[in-house]
Amino acid sequence: MRENDFLDWIRTRGVAQPKRVPVGPGDDCAVVGLGGERLVVTNDQLLAGVHFEPSVEPRLVGRKAMNRGLSDVAAMAAVPVCAVATLAAPHGFERENAEAVYLGLREAGDAFDCPLVGGDVAGWDGPLAVTVTVAATPGSSGWVLRSGAKPGDAVCVTGAFGAAWKGTRHLEFAPRIREARLLADRYRPHSMIDVSDALSLDLWRICRASGVGAEIDASAVPISEDVPAGDFDARLSAALGDGEDYELLFTLPGEQADRLVREQPLGVPVSRIGSIVAGERMTLIADGSPCPLTPNGWEHEI
Amino acid sequence: MRENDFLDWIRTRGVAQPKRVPVGPGDDCAVVGLGGERLVVTNDQLLAGVHFEPSVEPRLVGRKAMNRGLSDVAAMAAVPVCAVATLAAPHGFERENAEAVYLGLREAGDAFDCPLVGGDVAGWDGPLAVTVTVAATPGSSGWVLRSGAKPGDAVCVTGAFGAAWKGTRHLEFAPRIREARLLADRYRPHSMIDVSDALSLDLWRICRASGVGAEIDASAVPISEDVPAGDFDARLSAALGDGEDYELLFTLPGEQADRLVREQPLGVPVSRIGSIVAGERMTLIADGSPCPLTPNGWEHEI
Repeated sequence: MRENDFLDWIRTRGVAQPKRVPVGPGDDCAVVGLGGERLVVTNDQLLAGVHFEPSVEPRLVGRKAMNRGLSDVAAMAAVPVCAVATLAAPHGFERENAEAVYLGLREAGDAFDCPLVGGDVAGWDGPLAVTVTVAATPGSSGWVLRSGAKPGDAVCVTGAFGAAWKGTRHLEFAPRIREARLLADRYRPHSMIDVSDALSLDLWRICRASGVGAEIDASAVPISEDVPAGDFDARLSAALGDGEDYELLFTLPGEQADRLVREQPLGVPVSRIGSIVAGERMTLIADGSPCPLTPNGWEHEI
Repeated sequence: MRENDFLDWIRTRGVAQPKRVPVGPGDDCAVVGLGGERLVVTNDQLLAGVHFEPSVEPRLVGRKAMNRGLSDVAAMAAVPVCAVATLAAPHGFERENAEAVYLGLREAGDAFDCPLVGGDVAGWDGPLAVTVTVAATPGSSGWVLRSGAKPGDAVCVTGAFGAAWKGTRHLEFAPRIREARLLADRYRPHSMIDVSDALSLDLWRICRASGVGAEIDASAVPISEDVPAGDFDARLSAALGDGEDYELLFTLPGEQADRLVREQPLGVPVSRIGSIVAGERMTLIADGSPCPLTPNGWEHEI
């Protein structure tokens, strides 16, 4: 069973109460009417052996679990309100390790005014698993979806990509909450996603949701210092396919992108890496030659 | 590590942003300010080998996962708004089984106007685990906590208790959403909890949160038909200690309880099983003789 096929099937099932659910399954968060307000909500799981090696310090496991949820909230340019979390701990898991997971969750949440308000803990005959649900509200400019990209948009990213898994960046990244809100307020991106699975795969998700294609300039893709020196193609491939970068990938009108790249207002560098085009194809342009850009990255096989 | 000790420790840590969090960790749900509204939120996990046997039909696993969350919402007399869920599936988990978990989640949520709006799925080298977060809003009478019981209150329950695990009741129970709202609107309970871990243990939680004791009349405890015929003490012990009943346990002024038991307005029977008293002791009165009532039930050892 491929994860994406199953998620596609879920999307075909729709939601009950569609009038109350402006954004259902398929984006980084859902958006739901709650009284006179809008609730932006996401949940995610962090599984031993899948999202972290069992040897990772429990405090970093807690941090990563919370920050992945916050990164999804950033992708919608939303404002965190609170979080709840579950911990499934292998029998014999030490109390001090459970406390460390909790403290990691807390410190990551508290850094973004996102208090941990509840949860559940149980022991079991399985590996360590932590899940986090983050509740948020839309920012003053509303929410940003994957589906708003338009031909002619510039494709931009924050930060640099590749080999996050080899170092500690996949454990210690900062979710781009503040950056996303500033982008939404000042530059009005048409579409946005956080790059968790890989740059090429998450770009493909924007293209598919928006019904567009993209052309990416190979020389403009920012490659992380974590990627070992060597052959350019191998380094580019790492940037496009490794995943776990937790940077923002977004599209916006070209003149806004020019202004953004010139002003560099985020603290983290913003790069313009290509353009949205009509059609469905993703193309990589290297040394003036176009070739197909295959979505490649982290996809769960179940 | 004992689950309750760890949860006690978490409670001592407080929450960030306490002004925004009227109810933090320690009740069935948390309550958090969200714009001009209040968000009532709970999450829970359903783990293979702990909360269900691996042989249970996946659709019933999905139903139980959602209904446990809804039962927590009922315990606050709140109104469900939406849910999100995660599925961690053992490698090789069949697509049709994943679909069945989803359909079980959906049918349980849809029955209470609680659309499933998002989630996460991953395969891993571990057993099946499903988590559900339910978002809700307070009913028109506000929320009901564990901590409001007062000496002189009657102790009441919906339904009957014991041996839920032996049949299918622990998989196919109906969360008492409508019953709880009717109770809150018409009878104003002082405290309420859903009986997931066991009647005696969840009564102890109300007593501890409220700083009170309780006297329970052994002959008034409704014993489920699922409990095998035989010795009365053994049957009573099952009712008090088995857990997984997902009924409501609540306290309210005696005259309100009299009216409630007379009117029986809920569809499910309501029984008055004892009284809240000053002090901290829980007492069981059988044949006129008092003896200590020990909280006994499902508690996770990690």
